[in-house]
Amino acid sequence: MTGDERLSDETAIPVVQMRRPRWGDPAHSAELPGAAAALAGGAEADTGVDPTSITLPRPIVNADVRDELSAIVGIDNVSDADASRVQHTRGYSTPDILRLRAGDADDAPDLVVFPGDHDEVVAILRLCSGRRIAVVPFTGGTSVVGGLTPDRAGFDGVISLDLRRLDRMVEVDEISRMATLEAGLRGPAAEALLREKGWTIGHFPQSYEGAGIGGYAATRSAGQSSAGYGRFDEMVEGLVLATPRGTIELGTAPRSAAGPDLRQLVLGSEGVFGVITSVRVRIRPAPTTRVFDAWRFGSFADGATALRRLAQDGPLPTVLRLSDEVETALNLADPAGAGSGASGPNDAGAGSGASGPNDAGAGSEASGPDDAGAGCLVVAGYEGAADEVARRRDAASAVLTGAGGSALGDGPGEAWRTGRFAAPYLRDPLLDAGVLVETLETVAFWSRLHDVRVAVTAALTDSLTASGTPPLVMCHISHVYESGASLYFTIVAPFGDDPLVQWAAAKTAANAAIRASGASITHHHAVGRDHRDAYHDEIGPLALDALRAVKASLDPAGVCNPGILI
Amino acid sequence: MTGDERLSDETAIPVVQMRRPRWGDPAHSAELPGAAAALAGGAEADTGVDPTSITLPRPIVNADVRDELSAIVGIDNVSDADASRVQHTRGYSTPDILRLRAGDADDAPDLVVFPGDHDEVVAILRLCSGRRIAVVPFTGGTSVVGGLTPDRAGFDGVISLDLRRLDRMVEVDEISRMATLEAGLRGPAAEALLREKGWTIGHFPQSYEGAGIGGYAATRSAGQSSAGYGRFDEMVEGLVLATPRGTIELGTAPRSAAGPDLRQLVLGSEGVFGVITSVRVRIRPAPTTRVFDAWRFGSFADGATALRRLAQDGPLPTVLRLSDEVETALNLADPAGAGSGASGPNDAGAGSGASGPNDAGAGSEASGPDDAGAGCLVVAGYEGAADEVARRRDAASAVLTGAGGSALGDGPGEAWRTGRFAAPYLRDPLLDAGVLVETLETVAFWSRLHDVRVAVTAALTDSLTASGTPPLVMCHISHVYESGASLYFTIVAPFGDDPLVQWAAAKTAANAAIRASGASITHHHAVGRDHRDAYHDEIGPLALDALRAVKASLDPAGVCNPGILI
Repeated sequence: MTGDERLSDETAIPVVQMRRPRWGDPAHSAELPGAAAALAGGAEADTGVDPTSITLPRPIVNADVRDELSAIVGIDNVSDADASRVQHTRGYSTPDILRLRAGDADDAPDLVVFPGDHDEVVAILRLCSGRRIAVVPFTGGTSVVGGLTPDRAGFDGVISLDLRRLDRMVEVDEISRMATLEAGLRGPAAEALLREKGWTIGHFPQSYEGAGIGGYAATRSAGQSSAGYGRFDEMVEGLVLATPRGTIELGTAPRSAAGPDLRQLVLGSEGVFGVITSVRVRIRPAPTTRVFDAWRFGSFADGATALRRLAQDGPLPTVLRLSDEVETALNLADPAGAGSGASGPNDAGAGSGASGPNDAGAGSEASGPDDAGAGCLVVAGYEGAADEVARRRDAASAVLTGAGGSALGDGPGEAWRTGRFAAPYLRDPLLDAGVLVETLETVAFWSRLHDVRVAVTAALTDSLTASGTPPLVMCHISHVYESGASLYFTIVAPFGDDPLVQWAAAKTAANAAIRASGASITHHHAVGRDHRDAYHDEIGPLALDALRAVKASLDPAGVCNPGILI
Repeated sequence: MTGDERLSDETAIPVVQMRRPRWGDPAHSAELPGAAAALAGGAEADTGVDPTSITLPRPIVNADVRDELSAIVGIDNVSDADASRVQHTRGYSTPDILRLRAGDADDAPDLVVFPGDHDEVVAILRLCSGRRIAVVPFTGGTSVVGGLTPDRAGFDGVISLDLRRLDRMVEVDEISRMATLEAGLRGPAAEALLREKGWTIGHFPQSYEGAGIGGYAATRSAGQSSAGYGRFDEMVEGLVLATPRGTIELGTAPRSAAGPDLRQLVLGSEGVFGVITSVRVRIRPAPTTRVFDAWRFGSFADGATALRRLAQDGPLPTVLRLSDEVETALNLADPAGAGSGASGPNDAGAGSGASGPNDAGAGSEASGPDDAGAGCLVVAGYEGAADEVARRRDAASAVLTGAGGSALGDGPGEAWRTGRFAAPYLRDPLLDAGVLVETLETVAFWSRLHDVRVAVTAALTDSLTASGTPPLVMCHISHVYESGASLYFTIVAPFGDDPLVQWAAAKTAANAAIRASGASITHHHAVGRDHRDAYHDEIGPLALDALRAVKASLDPAGVCNPGILI
């Protein structure tokens, strides 16, 4: 167990300057670890086109619009430099990466604009509304659902509105435990500012190094510590939205019966109503103690039942996750790689059949055979004050033991914790080696969770097998609620003839399986373009009409992130 | 402490057949207890006009519309009987009661319609949309903010849509801990159905005997056990909304990043987008143990700090409330009456000056003098399984002791608990005796809470004093959050020349003070007509436009509860 001072691991993680198409800073790029390197052994590395050599489409924004933008933000804060445009092209889904690696930058914005405050954002939206310029809000640029790729048709240009200059901590209300943070603050920078005063947000998604406050809010992000600190949408006490028609400020009180909760209409709106420029977020005392335990369960069903008990009757750890047999085998062998596709279908101990729908681990709530394998790993992490952590750990451990778990000590849990932001770095060398890696996720009520897992696994397996590239499909639960839980899938397969086509078919099949089994199309990745059709199916035509009516009211010219969400 | 069986007090409370203008069933009507009876001593009781003798406006709905309504729901489920129309006239604010006592039933609906299922509700809304008939959804009819009094101008009649026949428990998902309940189920009936299977919703507002599931959802109700079970809007996992254009069904998963949380757009919409016909609500195991402790704090500020500690660092009791000095004095003398206006300004031990802005108890966060008076009462109630209750009670008691509280045992707490639904019955005999009684409430962040309390108390005191009727103003906190808390005010004053005018001025002053001090216009009473202007001020013109756009999309003819909320 860690000692008595304020823990600082997350604040020691720097904001990373993402360099497309690869994840993170080139200086941090990963080597493939053991198993994955073995997989990639025979292939010749192909790192794709050098991004500095990509030929971009000619910018179409008129010179007078550019002058007016410069008049708002200053001439140095408007850029059409190739490097800047490439940096703001699409996001970090595997298809996004593959396109840019192939030299396709057709979705590059015409200009990148860097406003300095909220009023400049409003002025830019007003201007663009009058000039039919589409506006894409940009904080970390880490979307994996096409949230940064707007429709261009019908517009006289597209600007990427990069909020990096909105990076202030505006206010800390220590009595009410809230901090007002501007939208362009990246996760590590926000945590560093708060930690100086002894506070934390407690929001640590896997995109933590790159993503920003505005993006967390606009996409309903959920972090790895959501069991303890909540989802980002639960932390938001207030927010300020810039729209083409002016400003909306929400969040008079913690909770209110004054009409619909309009904060929840803006959270998850992905830039289509306007741009979130600041968020007032709940803060908690920075933890002084931390311990991450690992547990082994005989089957995924047994582990899921244990997680459900903790979610429904408590106490909840700060971090709580359950990996299936395949992910468990990889995790215990190589913690940094699990969940990121750090191993291929030929990885030792994890045949691809082990993740199919007939797998014992994907069985019913009834306990599976407690075989001699690695079983299913549960990570239960606790953070807080020492006595509170001890109490919570004791009580949760009793529940986990009572539910059939075997304690593995804090070695594997701690290894997971220290490696948890390394995973995205491994995708790039796997792609270099011709191995397709992608993730997708969903959330469902507990009573449906098993069926959803079986259906999605089967859809992915069948589609990729039909493409001639049988996949490895892994799954974990990383977020639990009283009524249900998330399911996060990692898919690894060799490249087919055209990985974009190969993945598009698999993704379509997975989306259909998610909807047909009664789950939500996304738990924390958001809708963007890639989930748009499934989202419309999920909410139905009248609710979609209502959202479009809100957009027409606030953004009459339709310039705010067109083609995203609705 | 109560024993080991499932506790059944709340399920033993029957659904009450409300009989306007008096609260509850005449068979349950209250006698004034000691202090209040003394106050009313000299006055001659005036119980107002006999509601059966009120002359109602002639119904204006055309015969053909009535025939079409009868074709949808059956001829026996359409009524223009005087008694039924009076029963559906307005709600239970003191002005609503005073108007009906004076024989004013101008707001009576033309017809009362009793649909039998969701499809009939949709058909009625479609019909009324085509015929310009305003529709007022009705479950318990307990609104205290004018939520049942629509605009009539521009409509060819008003129907009250009474959902009492939608009273089924449709499904219980014991794995996911959710129950699907139709909107017309009253609180006690819903609890009785669930208790048979060992579950509870845990939602016990003061209107519990009369109010219904649909009303809870449409108004963002908060119950007395909100610290433990949450607000009603937090319990809703899914809902079905009937609109004039058809059906919206929401709630695929516990939480999702699939766009805005549209459940939160319908919750609190007060019937203006359509009619909520069923709700899928979180359920919890019915408690087997219950204990209600009382604590004394030297000042309101000290008590508020203690409540804040429990809300921010835990553990939270199931019920947690703090009364100011005046309410405390009344509560300890007469638990059933406190918070209901069971005593007047001349009540022993509670001079009206004691609730003014200069009161020591309303002072800063610094501790007030620990005088020899009753101080400020905290009720901390715990419900659940025996061991869990014991653990939580021990830990919370340590926090309360550490924050300066003195334990008073479980006598006063238990007295508060058993009397907590009796309070509304006392308003009627007080009105009979010429004593004005009303309540209002708000919610604010902790850092603003003191200023809000001072400002609202001063506004009420100044306004009613200027009317020549100096009031008694009491205040309590009944709902706590990490970032803030509710404030609930009870106001008692002798009748002036015109109590409606007298109260209207005081209410206007209170609304202005709430908004000027940065609080929300309502914590759990909702907006209705009475808070509409202040609500528009609170959310601002662009957010109001967005809500109106949603209404125009779902209810193009504007027939759904016109004049309410927006």
